[in-house]
Amino acid sequence: MTKSYDPALLEPTLYPFEIPVSTRFGDLDPNGHINNVALAVAFEDARVRFSRANLTDGVLDTRTMIVANYIDYLAQAYYPQPLHIHFGVDEIGRSSWNVALIAVQDGTVVALNRAVLVHSDGQRAMPMPQPMREKLQAFRLRRGDTR
Amino acid sequence: MTKSYDPALLEPTLYPFEIPVSTRFGDLDPNGHINNVALAVAFEDARVRFSRANLTDGVLDTRTMIVANYIDYLAQAYYPQPLHIHFGVDEIGRSSWNVALIAVQDGTVVALNRAVLVHSDGQRAMPMPQPMREKLQAFRLRRGDTR
Amino acid sequence: MTKSYDPALLEPTLYPFEIPVSTRFGDLDPNGHINNVALAVAFEDARVRFSRANLTDGVLDTRTMIVANYIDYLAQAYYPQPLHIHFGVDEIGRSSWNVALIAVQDGTVVALNRAVLVHSDGQRAMPMPQPMREKLQAFRLRRGDTR
Amino acid sequence: MTKSYDPALLEPTLYPFEIPVSTRFGDLDPNGHINNVALAVAFEDARVRFSRANLTDGVLDTRTMIVANYIDYLAQAYYPQPLHIHFGVDEIGRSSWNVALIAVQDGTVVALNRAVLVHSDGQRAMPMPQPMREKLQAFRLRRGDTR
Repeated sequence: MTKSYDPALLEPTLYPFEIPVSTRFGDLDPNGHINNVALAVAFEDARVRFSRANLTDGVLDTRTMIVANYIDYLAQAYYPQPLHIHFGVDEIGRSSWNVALIAVQDGTVVALNRAVLVHSDGQRAMPMPQPMREKLQAFRLRRGDTR
Repeated sequence: MTKSYDPALLEPTLYPFEIPVSTRFGDLDPNGHINNVALAVAFEDARVRFSRANLTDGVLDTRTMIVANYIDYLAQAYYPQPLHIHFGVDEIGRSSWNVALIAVQDGTVVALNRAVLVHSDGQRAMPMPQPMREKLQAFRLRRGDTR
Repeated sequence: MTKSYDPALLEPTLYPFEIPVSTRFGDLDPNGHINNVALAVAFEDARVRFSRANLTDGVLDTRTMIVANYIDYLAQAYYPQPLHIHFGVDEIGRSSWNVALIAVQDGTVVALNRAVLVHSDGQRAMPMPQPMREKLQAFRLRRGDTR
Repeated sequence: MTKSYDPALLEPTLYPFEIPVSTRFGDLDPNGHINNVALAVAFEDARVRFSRANLTDGVLDTRTMIVANYIDYLAQAYYPQPLHIHFGVDEIGRSSWNVALIAVQDGTVVALNRAVLVHSDGQRAMPMPQPMREKLQAFRLRRGDTR
C-alpha cells in the first residue's frame, strides 16, 4: 500500500497549536510501548482541549461528532515522558472540518492523526455558525496549498 | 472531504471471519454512546483474535506491528449489546498486509476499520514466511476486484 | 498487613448471580497479564449488568454512585479466555448496599471485589425505594452469617 | 457499613511525595465525571512514577506486584483540570509494603487509595533488598502512630 498521507504533515512548524499530553503506565502494552489505542486517546484529548480552549465558552461542546479518525504510526512511543501534540485545522466545510495532529516525543514524530469532525445537534449534521468558522480559520495549518 | 473508502466494504457478506466483541460499561462516553476509542479497542481485539486463531501456533504473536489504523464512524453504538466484528484480509504485500473490518450492532454497520499490519522482528519489517502468506490468502475479502 | 477480607468470600457457590466478561487484548499490561485496572473495568461491567438486569426497568440507572471499591488480586489473569464474574449482595443499608464479586478464570479465583454503592439523586444519597430493597434481598450472598 | 479507613489519611500534609496527573477526555463517563476506574489508572500511574523515581535505577521495575487496591471515592472529579496525587508509604513488611495516596482536585480530596505491593521475582514474593527498604522508609507517611 502506498502512503496515503501528505508527508508535509509531519513537519511540526505547520501546526499553530500545541498541547502536551502526559503518558500513563496504563498506556503500555505487552511490548512495553505506548499502545496504539492509547495514542488515539491522547489525540482525542488534544482535540477536545483545542475545542474547549478555542471553540466554546468553557462548557463541554457535546455537539461535535467524529466521523473519521485516521492514525499513522511512525515510531514507537514510550513511558513516562510526555507527548507533545501539534494541532491544526485543515479543510473547513459547511458542517464538517478536517484536522491534523502529530504526536512528538523526544523530538521524534511518533504518529499522525487526521480526523473529520462534524458540527451537529447530537443526531445530525448542522451548518457551523459563522463565529465558529472564523475561529477554526484562525488555526489553519500553515501551508500554502490545500490538500 | 469526499469519502475515502470503498462503500462496498460496508457489506458483511464480503468478510470471511466473524468475531463477537462484548461492550462494557466503561466504553461509554459522556454522550451515553460507545466512545470512538472503545471501538478502536474492539477492532484491535478482533484483529488479535484473528491472528491468534489463524496465524500463530497459539502463542502471542508479538511480531506484528500496526502502522496505519483508519476508522470511519457510521452510526452510534450502544451498551450493553455486543458488537459483531467482521474481518477480512485485503491486500497482501511482501512484509505488510491490509485488513478491513466492520463493526455491526443490531444489524447496523456502526464503523469501518482499515489497518496496515507489518510482520517484523519487533523493530523492523521482515518478509512474511510463505505459510503465513498462505493463511492470510485464505481469509481474503470476497470481492472480484482489488482496491 | 493481615488479610482484611473474609476468605469465605472466595467460594463461588456463595454467589447467586454470574456474568461472563470477555477479556480484550487491550487489557494486557507490560507483564503480559490482564492489568489490575482492567479487572476493575470487568467488575464494573458486571455490577452494571446486574443492576440493569435486575434493578431497573431497562433504562440506565444513573443514580447509583460507587463510594468504595476494594479489589484483592489473588492470581494472574490471562488473555484471551473470558472471566466469569460471580456477584452477590452483602449488606443492605438505608441508602447504600455492599456487594461482593469474584472473578474466576479457568477455575481459579483471580480477584475479589467488594464495593459500596449508594442510591442517589446524582448528588446526594437517598433512601432506597422498597421494591429496590426487595430485589437486592433476592440476590444476597448465600451465607449464614453476616460480616 | 462503617468507614474502614483512618480519616487522618485525608490530610495532604501527611504525604511526602506529590505527583500531578492530567485528566483526559477519555476518563469521563456517562455522568460527565471522571470515571472511578480512571481514578484507579491515575493512582496506578502515580505509584509507578514514585517507584521509577525512587526505587529503581531508571529501568522499569517489573518485579512489583499489586495484591490489594482499595479506593474510597469522596467527591466528584472533573475534566480538564489535573489531579494532584499525594503519595506516602505506610507499613513496610518483609516482602510487601502498604502505600496510601489521595487525589486532590481544586483543593478537594476526591479519592483515597490504599494499596499493598509485593516485591517479587514476577511469580512469587521475595524479601526486599535492604536499600529498597531504606528508600521506602524515607517516604513514610508523616504521622506519629502506625495504623
